[in-house]
Amino acid sequence: METKMKRIKHPKLKSLVVTPEEAASWINDGMTLGLSGFTKAGDAKAVPFALIKRAETETFKVNIYTGASLGSDVDTAFAEAGIVGKRLPFQADPVMRSKINNGDMLFVDQHLSHTAELIRAEVIGPIDFAILEAVSISEDGFIIPTTSVGNSAIFAEHAKHIIVEINMAQPEILEGLHDIYDTGKQGERQPIPLTKPDDRIGTTGIKVDPAKIKGIVFTNQLDSPSTIVAPDAETKQMADHLLDFLRLEIRQGRLTEKLAPLQSGIGSVANAVLHGMVDSEFTDLDIYSEVLQDSVFDLIDAGKVRSASCCSITLSEDKMDQVFGNFEKYRDKIIMRPQEISNHPEIIRRLGLISINTALEFDIYGNVNSTHVSGTNMMNGIGGSGDFARNARLAIFVTKSIAKGGKISSVVPFVSHVDHTEHDVDIVVTEQGYADLRGLAPRERVPLIIENCVHPTYRAQMWEYYTEALGRGGQTPHVLEKAFLWHTNLKQQGTMLQEVGQLV
Amino acid sequence: METKMKRIKHPKLKSLVVTPEEAASWINDGMTLGLSGFTKAGDAKAVPFALIKRAETETFKVNIYTGASLGSDVDTAFAEAGIVGKRLPFQADPVMRSKINNGDMLFVDQHLSHTAELIRAEVIGPIDFAILEAVSISEDGFIIPTTSVGNSAIFAEHAKHIIVEINMAQPEILEGLHDIYDTGKQGERQPIPLTKPDDRIGTTGIKVDPAKIKGIVFTNQLDSPSTIVAPDAETKQMADHLLDFLRLEIRQGRLTEKLAPLQSGIGSVANAVLHGMVDSEFTDLDIYSEVLQDSVFDLIDAGKVRSASCCSITLSEDKMDQVFGNFEKYRDKIIMRPQEISNHPEIIRRLGLISINTALEFDIYGNVNSTHVSGTNMMNGIGGSGDFARNARLAIFVTKSIAKGGKISSVVPFVSHVDHTEHDVDIVVTEQGYADLRGLAPRERVPLIIENCVHPTYRAQMWEYYTEALGRGGQTPHVLEKAFLWHTNLKQQGTMLQEVGQLV
Repeated sequence: METKMKRIKHPKLKSLVVTPEEAASWINDGMTLGLSGFTKAGDAKAVPFALIKRAETETFKVNIYTGASLGSDVDTAFAEAGIVGKRLPFQADPVMRSKINNGDMLFVDQHLSHTAELIRAEVIGPIDFAILEAVSISEDGFIIPTTSVGNSAIFAEHAKHIIVEINMAQPEILEGLHDIYDTGKQGERQPIPLTKPDDRIGTTGIKVDPAKIKGIVFTNQLDSPSTIVAPDAETKQMADHLLDFLRLEIRQGRLTEKLAPLQSGIGSVANAVLHGMVDSEFTDLDIYSEVLQDSVFDLIDAGKVRSASCCSITLSEDKMDQVFGNFEKYRDKIIMRPQEISNHPEIIRRLGLISINTALEFDIYGNVNSTHVSGTNMMNGIGGSGDFARNARLAIFVTKSIAKGGKISSVVPFVSHVDHTEHDVDIVVTEQGYADLRGLAPRERVPLIIENCVHPTYRAQMWEYYTEALGRGGQTPHVLEKAFLWHTNLKQQGTMLQEVGQLV
Repeated sequence: METKMKRIKHPKLKSLVVTPEEAASWINDGMTLGLSGFTKAGDAKAVPFALIKRAETETFKVNIYTGASLGSDVDTAFAEAGIVGKRLPFQADPVMRSKINNGDMLFVDQHLSHTAELIRAEVIGPIDFAILEAVSISEDGFIIPTTSVGNSAIFAEHAKHIIVEINMAQPEILEGLHDIYDTGKQGERQPIPLTKPDDRIGTTGIKVDPAKIKGIVFTNQLDSPSTIVAPDAETKQMADHLLDFLRLEIRQGRLTEKLAPLQSGIGSVANAVLHGMVDSEFTDLDIYSEVLQDSVFDLIDAGKVRSASCCSITLSEDKMDQVFGNFEKYRDKIIMRPQEISNHPEIIRRLGLISINTALEFDIYGNVNSTHVSGTNMMNGIGGSGDFARNARLAIFVTKSIAKGGKISSVVPFVSHVDHTEHDVDIVVTEQGYADLRGLAPRERVPLIIENCVHPTYRAQMWEYYTEALGRGGQTPHVLEKAFLWHTNLKQQGTMLQEVGQLV
């Protein structure tokens, strides 16, 4: 206990230690909770489970706001317990996804930079309890986050009460990693004084009113490891295409071998693309991203990285041992920020990021669906992809050209849900190749996308659709009554694939 | 001639005066021209027509980049002459629209803040000739724009050659109105030092290398007047609904009677909404918009306006006389900026604008189509609506609930083209009422939109679609095979209206 208490450096707060069960008992039906946690990193682990336990004998609902997805099966357990009224701004849990799509709970899918603005403006909320994982509480009452910052700072500022979970499994060496900056209110704020990816502009902990801290619990549990899979032949091809494109940009004088600050979305494909730079000529790279995955640390090990700014660190099990076991090797290069800053349009536009995110599907004009399977069923949420794509120097979307053994084409005539419009998408990449859409009119985009990105199995079928559409004319020719035929065929016949000439 | 020559204050440039015909003779097949002009204001008038005249005896094509739409029938004449290869980033001309939709010319529909970045990064271009309307050229060679800034500064900076059209019909009193600021390159730039809507951060003219000025022509012709129609009963209802909403925001403590800086899109509806504030309690208003239409000057006359920042001034014929005939009354309140700054996400987010733009149609989840009739035929372009909606404090879209005497419902099950996704749309308004979508999950949005915004004629039909969709489940329930049925019915049967129960 003595070791634990050393993590509470503010003397007046030492008396606030409670059990998770006691802390959870303060939460009432209808409350809104702001939880730390972003891409399974730095999530509150004990109080949520104690609250879920209460659902065995009580009936109640709470609204759950977070940074992004939670680890430790918290979202699974929340969903199974049926105690979530509204969840925002992102989740990535199969059980929760199923509840959302069944209409059993409400999910608000937000740009990850927007949630803080809505809380600050009191459009959503109020937050009754912020429940925040921490390494420690400093002498002056600052909360030192662990492996993510997410929305923790804005939750702490606007919550009526705060519960801190000090995680003894996270080393104190994490202190100093974070850079907490509050933009202030719209209409009253100054420019965000960040002009280089590694600028420090804030404090190393979250400043709170100590009187708002109602309880402190201790935990001792690492984050859930990421489930990204290693690069495969196709993701390597995609990485190669993307590297080819970047080399062409260099030859055309638009980039140097230092490239521009890189953002890469969560997931196996984006991870593979960054991993592809390990053996490249690119060097002295800056990363300005939401989440640092395994590949960023491979790049650091390869001596390729000047700095890496993030909002969370999400690693596979092996990588977690390696990185946090040797953190001195990495810490000088890493800065962890609130998601409002990691994803802020002001900064993304100023720095001119190269932004790489995963598409669920894209269409012949370059519109991208990141979220909804067949236009209806939520996968995870738009996350930060919109914050980045709209404002980046290069908005790149990657996806394998086919899925489910070829029954699904990831390139379709008309995306069944639009998250990123043709105005916001610069480059699309599949294992087949890439299409550079910049400066092209819609009719110029189509042949590039079909020939470079569509899987050969689907090319003739796509040409047939487009040829019929061209007969109708327009800026973006379409055959509206057939625009979703591939999707409805998938549902009715189990495949998007049709013998060309047989489309009805 | 002597009066004219006084407008060329830089002594070495006086020898560059040529006829429009001579200037136009310098332009060759395949060149790219950057023209001043934004929403029919401040457009180059003489050289374009001299160039078009050449098409009577010559065959050639040029690419035309502008700020936004051109007046003086220049786009009409360009389109009729068939000499435009590619046009960007916006147009609003019926003849050109028809050529675009027929595939006779290419049109790239861009966010209006993005074009300057693409030119600066040499992704589009190079610009062979910038052709810029001016009031005068200053002693130190600065070009003083007239009634718009648009993309003129970035054209001037990156063009190989510049042709200046000094318009004697525009008074020299316009000098001092403009505030030209260059952001510099991505990755090297500083924060844009604008924290209040009326901050001046730049120069009053466009700095150019005098050696790049190849010719100066004189013109004497006012801008084309705007064609906005006066508020009618329905636009007044929409304005009233919007004012009710703003009053509720005040009662809830989110706004004061000074509101927040206002942006209002081009067109009759947005003009009517602003006009609705003339007799309101709102006061001491700041405008931070693209274009100032008649209503802003009515608001100034009513003593309601503290400052008005814009990128162009586009007025009806009567209003033009009144405003420019009494410009001393208005000039201290007005600042005119490059469209990159009037529409910059950094500024829009910082200031927290209230943004009001017109939708062509929106759907039951709040996705907005601003551009494509039935998903295919371009109207004008997205303009600045995306720059504003994504980053505003309040992203408001307005449209009449029906069109063509009720044959078209402007609220549909699934928009046939997406310019603004559900993530970017806060409030939708029709003459029926408004729906405040903030913080709501998709399934919460639907009843509000149907009951508050859909025309009564279409409500049962919409409920029928949504009820069937709900049976399919999902985050955004849809019946994909019927998603565009209203649009295809319009095409095939001349109306979206169906007897409920008869949908197949």
